Amino acid sequence: MSADDSTLALDARQLNEFLDAAFPDAGRGYRVESADLDGIRMRLPFDDDQLRPGGTISGPTMMSLADAAAWLVTLSRIGPEAMSVTSSLSIHFLAKPEPADLWAEARLLRLGARQSVSEVRLWTDGGDPAEPVAHATVAYAIPRPRTG
Amino acid sequence: MSADDSTLALDARQLNEFLDAAFPDAGRGYRVESADLDGIRMRLPFDDDQLRPGGTISGPTMMSLADAAAWLVTLSRIGPEAMSVTSSLSIHFLAKPEPADLWAEARLLRLGARQSVSEVRLWTDGGDPAEPVAHATVAYAIPRPRTG
Amino acid sequence: MSADDSTLALDARQLNEFLDAAFPDAGRGYRVESADLDGIRMRLPFDDDQLRPGGTISGPTMMSLADAAAWLVTLSRIGPEAMSVTSSLSIHFLAKPEPADLWAEARLLRLGARQSVSEVRLWTDGGDPAEPVAHATVAYAIPRPRTG
Amino acid sequence: MSADDSTLALDARQLNEFLDAAFPDAGRGYRVESADLDGIRMRLPFDDDQLRPGGTISGPTMMSLADAAAWLVTLSRIGPEAMSVTSSLSIHFLAKPEPADLWAEARLLRLGARQSVSEVRLWTDGGDPAEPVAHATVAYAIPRPRTG
Repeated sequence: MSADDSTLALDARQLNEFLDAAFPDAGRGYRVESADLDGIRMRLPFDDDQLRPGGTISGPTMMSLADAAAWLVTLSRIGPEAMSVTSSLSIHFLAKPEPADLWAEARLLRLGARQSVSEVRLWTDGGDPAEPVAHATVAYAIPRPRTG
Repeated sequence: MSADDSTLALDARQLNEFLDAAFPDAGRGYRVESADLDGIRMRLPFDDDQLRPGGTISGPTMMSLADAAAWLVTLSRIGPEAMSVTSSLSIHFLAKPEPADLWAEARLLRLGARQSVSEVRLWTDGGDPAEPVAHATVAYAIPRPRTG
Repeated sequence: MSADDSTLALDARQLNEFLDAAFPDAGRGYRVESADLDGIRMRLPFDDDQLRPGGTISGPTMMSLADAAAWLVTLSRIGPEAMSVTSSLSIHFLAKPEPADLWAEARLLRLGARQSVSEVRLWTDGGDPAEPVAHATVAYAIPRPRTG
Repeated sequence: MSADDSTLALDARQLNEFLDAAFPDAGRGYRVESADLDGIRMRLPFDDDQLRPGGTISGPTMMSLADAAAWLVTLSRIGPEAMSVTSSLSIHFLAKPEPADLWAEARLLRLGARQSVSEVRLWTDGGDPAEPVAHATVAYAIPRPRTG
């Protein structure tokens, strides 16, 4: 990230307010726990709906969380006005997650005027972030030139 | 695909029965419309829950459908006994899908003893499959050696 | 692809001329064999330098060919003036390629003003394109707005 | 990584010896600079052959380095006997690298009996590893069960 990008446009509280406004009935329960210039951390509370046959958390649950985390880490830097859309997402599923809350940490690899690229690491609550259950790389398209 | 892999283990009806048994409350409504040695076609009926702000179908809806299509095209060849799990998924979002049914076509690029690799193309009902709204490549791990 | 994109800016001969001019000492020997609105086909002549231990063609040889094919299929539609750069490439290696010429077929999945997304299929000369040795998805960033 | 995987099978010197033996005429000049349980660091000396039009280091040069780094970090843990092959590689190009030596850092995200998944970060000598020029995720297939 270049020096002129190094301000936080939205903190954790503001990201959660934005999330609640954008998804009023957000049953998923995504919650940003922390946000700083290094990235954001989110928690997804466990829910039986997330299970797939075999009793582990489903791939779509993890993909949705990774997508949300990459979106929110982008907004944390460019602010809430951007109608950014995911342009690509690539995820590796590394271990079967136990039925428990999921954590996600998203970090920006690049923040350009037209695109952000983030990496996202997912792990199970109580587990070791160094042994992630999934790892994703996500590109977001930023439609309008940033004026900040 | 090598010649010895060229039989269909499950047809469209059997895939749908398997899907219903595995996900009894499958609100998503995935339906396999056709299955042959070239691949499978699925339809996801439109539902308001699939929308994201802006009125287009959400990324997670498309990722879940791509994942399901890659899983089912694998099962169409190896049968219902395999506890296969997604090992990686890479998706490009190409156009914003209108609020309508989504179609998916999945084709196997490789069917090995331990892994399948599929490509999945998504498009909007009434649209042109040659102008997909998303394109995914999905790898599935097949835990046990196939005995067929 | 939308209707207004449906013209070929460079044919196979022009693509080869462009390639020769851009890479004067192009030892790799890439050659565009055909180009039309469906995509392009390229051939890479076999060379011992492409081998890895075990006698199969190396991954980097295949990645380079996939990258070149995605670049050239983009130029076939937007013309030679664009300084496009690869923004991402995702490749699955599906079979070990025998020591022989490699073929690549690239098709545009999307051609936007700022980005193209292509899929590329590689197979061995004399083999079956339906049983590719590798499959890639490649995104190209197009720096300037196209004026055509 | 699980506890029983936490030994280093090959250190930096042994990885370089292995590399020299496997690629006797290795003009590329890859060199492992350090290797420990956190991962490996490699350097690729700059060479004019790596340039693409525009004077920046080519995509294939970066893809090859990322592939090699993911391979060597796997071997650092499973030893030199494994005929591992890349099964997939996904790379984002984040900035145009200046003509200079390239660094790569590879870390294992997962080391299983049949597959490793690594992430690789590339940056320019003298630059900031936190501002990578490229980021890759690479899966390696490990053909035989590990006996260690």
